[in-house]
Amino acid sequence: MPRKSFPLAKVYGLLEPGPVVLLTTAHKGQTDIMAQSWHPMLEFEPPQIASVVSDRNASFDSLKATRECVIAIPTVELADAVVGCGNTSGRKVDKFAAFGLTAAPAQCVAAPLIAECYANLECRVIDTRMVNRYGLFVLEVVKAWIDPARKDPRTLHHRGNGRFMVAGETFKSKSRMK
Amino acid sequence: MPRKSFPLAKVYGLLEPGPVVLLTTAHKGQTDIMAQSWHPMLEFEPPQIASVVSDRNASFDSLKATRECVIAIPTVELADAVVGCGNTSGRKVDKFAAFGLTAAPAQCVAAPLIAECYANLECRVIDTRMVNRYGLFVLEVVKAWIDPARKDPRTLHHRGNGRFMVAGETFKSKSRMK
Repeated sequence: MPRKSFPLAKVYGLLEPGPVVLLTTAHKGQTDIMAQSWHPMLEFEPPQIASVVSDRNASFDSLKATRECVIAIPTVELADAVVGCGNTSGRKVDKFAAFGLTAAPAQCVAAPLIAECYANLECRVIDTRMVNRYGLFVLEVVKAWIDPARKDPRTLHHRGNGRFMVAGETFKSKSRMK
Repeated sequence: MPRKSFPLAKVYGLLEPGPVVLLTTAHKGQTDIMAQSWHPMLEFEPPQIASVVSDRNASFDSLKATRECVIAIPTVELADAVVGCGNTSGRKVDKFAAFGLTAAPAQCVAAPLIAECYANLECRVIDTRMVNRYGLFVLEVVKAWIDPARKDPRTLHHRGNGRFMVAGETFKSKSRMK
């Protein structure tokens, strides 16, 4: 391939186009939402996720204190709300009210579901050993919800610096991968 | 939203649509390639990646022994090669030869670049404390290469069970996210 050296500071934009998610927490009667792109899977079942939350986010404190959250997965229709959640701090803004999102009660955790999102995952923190060094919380999904009407959800994938890729078509391969 | 409870065993298909990558290693004169979807970012710069490699993969042994790899990012044109890499074991197959991929020398590590991929990241293992429990290697990208001709790379994103989403259009938002 014709190739060009690429700045290390931009590498995240190559790898993070997993779906942008909204992570909700509830702490001392206050709910919060943060936008997150760094959340790889660790195990199939029970599903475990490595969720990276910087200690600069208000959600860090709630997650550490309550050890519970919801990961809500938005689609392109919610792009403005997602960008709004990413640009503001829960210390100053009620993000549900500010961005027209509806908090719905979860079944197993106190953090709210986001009714407008096509999928919602109720999570508990099961390992905090990597929190101080990497902000990495190991989460276990204890309950998952999906909107059965959405077949090919047009998820958002951050390519860095505010550029979002929207999920395109889906095809079935001969992969024997799980 | 109309909502339906969702099987926990399928949750990974919601979250892993980050780009499928090909991870190459070189050990005792032998190169190998594995397909990987579980690779979140941990830090912007220097770029650090949490790379999840099961000990069932031949690449696990090479990565543990050499502490080096290359993460190559393919696009949809390479879908058959990606699926082939995922369906076979480096213990039995020379994947470069079998799937028509070209190994190119890297600058900082012994593992090869894949010439057909639009980006290649040379990585070193910097933390193995989560390897035994989660198969999670912390990698640091020490050199990154990109094909300058590809503007909107049509990356592959695994939705689970062999279904792949192909990257759609990209738009610029007012996000102040990095």
